[in-house]
Amino acid sequence: MAKPIDFYFDFSSPYGYLGSEKIEALAAKHGRAIEWHPVLLGVVFRQTGAVPLTEIPIKGDYSRRDFARSARFHGVEGFRMPSRFPIPTQAPARIVLWAKAHDPAHTSAVVHALYRAFFNEDIDISSPDAAAAVAARAGADAKAVREAIDDPAVKDALKVENERAMAAGVFGSPFTVVDGEPFWGVDRFDQIDRWLGNGGW
Amino acid sequence: MAKPIDFYFDFSSPYGYLGSEKIEALAAKHGRAIEWHPVLLGVVFRQTGAVPLTEIPIKGDYSRRDFARSARFHGVEGFRMPSRFPIPTQAPARIVLWAKAHDPAHTSAVVHALYRAFFNEDIDISSPDAAAAVAARAGADAKAVREAIDDPAVKDALKVENERAMAAGVFGSPFTVVDGEPFWGVDRFDQIDRWLGNGGW
Repeated sequence: MAKPIDFYFDFSSPYGYLGSEKIEALAAKHGRAIEWHPVLLGVVFRQTGAVPLTEIPIKGDYSRRDFARSARFHGVEGFRMPSRFPIPTQAPARIVLWAKAHDPAHTSAVVHALYRAFFNEDIDISSPDAAAAVAARAGADAKAVREAIDDPAVKDALKVENERAMAAGVFGSPFTVVDGEPFWGVDRFDQIDRWLGNGGW
Repeated sequence: MAKPIDFYFDFSSPYGYLGSEKIEALAAKHGRAIEWHPVLLGVVFRQTGAVPLTEIPIKGDYSRRDFARSARFHGVEGFRMPSRFPIPTQAPARIVLWAKAHDPAHTSAVVHALYRAFFNEDIDISSPDAAAAVAARAGADAKAVREAIDDPAVKDALKVENERAMAAGVFGSPFTVVDGEPFWGVDRFDQIDRWLGNGGW
């Protein structure tokens, strides 16, 4: 089996959410699996001096319009901007890292449940209790994931994940790496599709 | 005839160049013409606090890779990064505004000649003499366009063009407006195609 596709994302990223809804089908089309990499853009942005898109004058207004339009364009239903945005995403990110290590069968479902809770249902998943309850809906052990959020080993794992992401050149969300080739944005999925089909061009 | 599509671009923008090579065919497919709007991103960026993409740590390296990969993806041949980049683009922008007013039959050809000179041949079109010589290749009157660059009326026209662009919400290049709907980037051309076909979605 070919190497999995590395999908880096922040739970507070609207384009990351759209990407999360499309990447598995795209990968499966080419016989690939997904390796989920939750990252903290707040930390990553310190490297590049970036600020959240929605906080930039003029561009912020455009981006809100583009999020919703792009959701419709890509056939992702139910998208709406959360009332609190952006949010810190340590809690859901730690849950995903815990799931990858201890409950891999539910990892994808947990990622989708958390993202949809935030971008469809306006549930503030920065709250550890809320994030754990959402993960439990997706089949994860409620008590275990709630404890994982405060577990020093899981906290460290997220720091390591972020360091590795930055070392791999990740500076935004979604950020997809296919056999060493980096693609930033859900708007590069057409290029990823061709890359996977042709082995580059 | 339906309203022309407004295409805003800076001559120092690689994605603007790629867009300039694709937008006419896309518009023609839907029975539309193009209204070319040269703008100065240096002025526009003051509004949003943006800096040139290639000057951002990490993101700059990615963007150079993405320029070339996207050129190949979109079938734009001959792309190469100019040895001096970015450049001030008053000279070519003023030529285009002069052409729109005095030589509309050659405007598109002049836009393409200037962009290709910079992104294929590494000609520094920030130089008034070089820009005028390139425009002349495309059928413009060499003496008239050279004089236009220093003409106070043309300088004012460019200032007005920039003000209007910013008032229309333009913050990057390429920036395409279809019947009031804004699309930033050559990576929104798939959305433009559907928008033109469906009248929105």
